[in-house]
Amino acid sequence: MSDPANLKPWALVSDRTVCQTPVLKVLARTLVSPKDGRPKDFTVLDAPSWVNVLAITPDERAVLVSQYRFGSQSFSLELPGGAVDPGEDPKDAARRELLEETGYSAPAFSLFLSLNPNPALFGNAVMTFVAQGAVLSGPTRFDENEETAVRLVDLPALRAKTLSGEIRHALMLAPLLRFFLERPDL
Amino acid sequence: MSDPANLKPWALVSDRTVCQTPVLKVLARTLVSPKDGRPKDFTVLDAPSWVNVLAITPDERAVLVSQYRFGSQSFSLELPGGAVDPGEDPKDAARRELLEETGYSAPAFSLFLSLNPNPALFGNAVMTFVAQGAVLSGPTRFDENEETAVRLVDLPALRAKTLSGEIRHALMLAPLLRFFLERPDL
Repeated sequence: MSDPANLKPWALVSDRTVCQTPVLKVLARTLVSPKDGRPKDFTVLDAPSWVNVLAITPDERAVLVSQYRFGSQSFSLELPGGAVDPGEDPKDAARRELLEETGYSAPAFSLFLSLNPNPALFGNAVMTFVAQGAVLSGPTRFDENEETAVRLVDLPALRAKTLSGEIRHALMLAPLLRFFLERPDL
Repeated sequence: MSDPANLKPWALVSDRTVCQTPVLKVLARTLVSPKDGRPKDFTVLDAPSWVNVLAITPDERAVLVSQYRFGSQSFSLELPGGAVDPGEDPKDAARRELLEETGYSAPAFSLFLSLNPNPALFGNAVMTFVAQGAVLSGPTRFDENEETAVRLVDLPALRAKTLSGEIRHALMLAPLLRFFLERPDL
């Protein structure tokens, strides 16, 4: 594939695992430059796809979670979500994460937005689903190191939080802003 | 700091470098759980802050770059940007990256949005600056492995690209959607 501006793609030579962690692999990716035909190495991160859910109750409140995050070392107000398991359908992952982290379920999950978390580093997708009609249907089931507090936030208040800086997680903010751009009534 | 829902933060014990790459460090971060008081290890990524710029020409066109990205192995239409150098002011980094990647300069750069790229993994910030009055003032100066094509896109067309899926870079889409949410005239 050529870019419209006549840039040419780099050709993949090989991926070598530099470092394996429980959540991602660091690869040294060798590609051939279209400019000089020489192979060069770059750092990229191989991670499973990630999903999150904007679950909305019948009375128009979003089901959010507040969670201590180890990268930022701070509490983060987020859409429920997580990594897609091997072989799992992303929609099923969204349904599972919503149930595990909040105890809520919903009759239908529709794919709202699929983004790349940062194409310089990542090849995976971060997918946001919208689930209308979400209702509490069971207890939360955190994994051992997870503890979240469920927060029900009505949509106008959530819109305010996306604009105030309270939601700083870029991968969550993008779909929320997109949602509110399409809902000028809120 | 306690979360309003009475969640407690985890206490940092230590960071150990697992893997060092040219663009980031992988750390094994040990923290003590507030639930059971036991230390646990998590993978986090230590990277410098990142900046990008929405540079707008006097005739209301955005200065964008198209670039082959090694994580996604595809062309990506993006705001000019990159990593902040050690000791560099983020605003100066935005000015430098704009000039290097596009040849454009602007009289003023104002911080528009500061986000975390993913608080589960990262502790750094991704900052978007807006630079009005951007004009072509010199040649591009790519580094050895960088080749970008500059694209001037008028703001209504850019709005359409943020909604059509053409811009999939989550860290760029969030500030763009925020910009257009504040500009319903476009």
